Amino acid sequence: MTGFTRQDAMRCDAEDGLAGLRDRFHLPSGGVYLDGNSLGALPRDTEEAVGGLVRSQWGQDLIASWNRHDWIGAPQRLGGLIAPLVGARDTEVIVCDTTSVNLFKLIAAALAARPGRTTILSETGNFPTDLYMAQGVAGMRGDVALRTVAADDIVDAIDDRTALVLLTHVHYRTSRMLDMRAITRAAHARGALALWDLSHSAGAVPVALDACAVDLAVGCGYKYLNGGPGAPAFLFVADRLQPELRSPLSGWMGHASPFAFDDAYSPADGLSRFLCGTPPMLAMAALESGLAQFAGVDLDALFAKSRALCDLLILLMRERCGDLGFTLVSPRDPLRRGSHVSYAHPQAYPICQALIANGVVGDFRAPDVLRLGLAPLYLRFVDVFDAVETLRRIMTEGEWDRPSYHARARVT
Amino acid sequence: MTGFTRQDAMRCDAEDGLAGLRDRFHLPSGGVYLDGNSLGALPRDTEEAVGGLVRSQWGQDLIASWNRHDWIGAPQRLGGLIAPLVGARDTEVIVCDTTSVNLFKLIAAALAARPGRTTILSETGNFPTDLYMAQGVAGMRGDVALRTVAADDIVDAIDDRTALVLLTHVHYRTSRMLDMRAITRAAHARGALALWDLSHSAGAVPVALDACAVDLAVGCGYKYLNGGPGAPAFLFVADRLQPELRSPLSGWMGHASPFAFDDAYSPADGLSRFLCGTPPMLAMAALESGLAQFAGVDLDALFAKSRALCDLLILLMRERCGDLGFTLVSPRDPLRRGSHVSYAHPQAYPICQALIANGVVGDFRAPDVLRLGLAPLYLRFVDVFDAVETLRRIMTEGEWDRPSYHARARVT
Repeated sequence: MTGFTRQDAMRCDAEDGLAGLRDRFHLPSGGVYLDGNSLGALPRDTEEAVGGLVRSQWGQDLIASWNRHDWIGAPQRLGGLIAPLVGARDTEVIVCDTTSVNLFKLIAAALAARPGRTTILSETGNFPTDLYMAQGVAGMRGDVALRTVAADDIVDAIDDRTALVLLTHVHYRTSRMLDMRAITRAAHARGALALWDLSHSAGAVPVALDACAVDLAVGCGYKYLNGGPGAPAFLFVADRLQPELRSPLSGWMGHASPFAFDDAYSPADGLSRFLCGTPPMLAMAALESGLAQFAGVDLDALFAKSRALCDLLILLMRERCGDLGFTLVSPRDPLRRGSHVSYAHPQAYPICQALIANGVVGDFRAPDVLRLGLAPLYLRFVDVFDAVETLRRIMTEGEWDRPSYHARARVT
Repeated sequence: MTGFTRQDAMRCDAEDGLAGLRDRFHLPSGGVYLDGNSLGALPRDTEEAVGGLVRSQWGQDLIASWNRHDWIGAPQRLGGLIAPLVGARDTEVIVCDTTSVNLFKLIAAALAARPGRTTILSETGNFPTDLYMAQGVAGMRGDVALRTVAADDIVDAIDDRTALVLLTHVHYRTSRMLDMRAITRAAHARGALALWDLSHSAGAVPVALDACAVDLAVGCGYKYLNGGPGAPAFLFVADRLQPELRSPLSGWMGHASPFAFDDAYSPADGLSRFLCGTPPMLAMAALESGLAQFAGVDLDALFAKSRALCDLLILLMRERCGDLGFTLVSPRDPLRRGSHVSYAHPQAYPICQALIANGVVGDFRAPDVLRLGLAPLYLRFVDVFDAVETLRRIMTEGEWDRPSYHARARVT
């Protein structure tokens, strides 16, 4: 027992050089928001960033805004803001569409670049849309199939039939972080490409796409990047691969000359060829505001704080909730873990609802996981302490078992 | 010569029962906005609609908003608002992704439903992204090709190899409206499906998808629907076809149970199976506000006003600019035309720039077309008069030929 107290947590906050970043966000008063890994909090600047685009650009300059306010350059400009968060060059990241749609583009492009190979290899239990989009591409082609194996068996399962290794860097349920460098190297050794989903990584943990020689990646704008609900996603294609890869979603914004209105598609140079339709400018403005919150932030310190918050949660759960039936699902090693911590419990669903009713917002992931996200931009150490205390009280007082907490919502 | 004067135009406005709708929109003062067919004007309600979602939903309720504010139901709810504008049942329209992405989904779904057929038939010079997405689907499959013919040759070109007839209802450049009923019937007679792009139709001209027995349709949210730059698009699948069609973009939001987190994709019942990623809620709020501007509007009167505005433009162009080198590209018959009118002129590009510099915002479409959109929700008859007068002055005084008007912008 360390006997770590609420005063200790407050001292950690007082010593936290990043503590001031919290003021950049609206957060519910009197509660603890542990779901920034699902929907990031609202930056204080965002309402005016979006309102200004609506009022002063769309409202005043209308169609001229595409040139005058460089709306047309937003996908590349926002990509350039994400690039340093994921260890990429700014020519390698572009913002567009959704994570799902971007998965389709890159899976299909990868398969086309590895003709004759018949397997997309992924992890059993990977985030559903990753598996579903792979199934969609495979179903449309007919000559390729998705194969899933346990994470520990991935490297051994890569063979000469593998066209693409499709993995999520940090697992949405367990928070386990896979070894991007080793798995990418193993894929390359057998001639396969590697596509990494960074949805639960970007903005929360170190990612080194270029240093790991990653080929392709996608990621989400509305989690740790704070871009707002359903924010545009991003995609990464290594510079060296861009000339040879083509998106099957060959929309006009990816054309070499979109306003020439040619009948025949000809892909743009560089990453712009992975654009498809017209950029969603209101959503782009919100994401740009979300990304602006990283300006001037020491990323090493930010990622260290993520690890420290998670370490504290694990410590306190052991010390204060150790006999309440929770089983740690996430790795203890902070270097093999994302910025959320998950516990299995047979009553995870009503427990999660009871926490929410008491202002501690985590989420439930089927079948039995309570997931607690620790977004380092705006969470305090005292928030972690208070969340665990609330959980302990709910459990020891039996509040979790109220009938209303067992009712299932449409979105969990 | 009718000798139609500015006073006549003002009398038309005074007698226009829809004139009050203009007050629902922000419009630039002192100018005439003739590009609502490219980017619809800003409704006065929209900034607060989006700001309220940002501030009171995302900011306050965060992740709980998916249930509490029915974010999760937005695609269907907004589809239900579009349905009456296009002659569909509210179970047949859903809002998601971009027009380009939705084209891909429906083209691919249609081809899968017509195995063994080898042709996607479209119009030469159709809007580029329609052709490009067809090329993208065809390229990914390998056993299908896009064939384009002139609009007048479409019906005769449909044969037993035709899987899909892919057409835009109102042509983006010429404003010509194709005969949806006759062409759809011809497609069905040869066993093909018909997919109509309503981007330049929805909200401006009558569309009767169900009465014309249309199979599939897509359309744009940011033109006459006033949803804002890059607004989400919509797609239509006739009720009778929904059980048999599947989207290759099989993302998690189209799954029968998205929050069961199954490894295997299983499509939702009904049109929800055509969803893919997470709905973009800021953009959804703006589009919902745009669609709200149609509430209580007599659609027959609205579409009649569109025809009357276009008729007046054509009349005045003949009477006041008849000797200035403009050739009407659009049909004279208002029942075979959309809500924009296009003129060819060898100097269309600098003329368009000169108009914009004088507050009359139309657009140029390569190679030589000046396109003037007449959005009936907010344009006045006097706007048409003033636009033509400005054009006449620019031409007769030679202002159009200033060197600065010849410089090409990135977005035209």
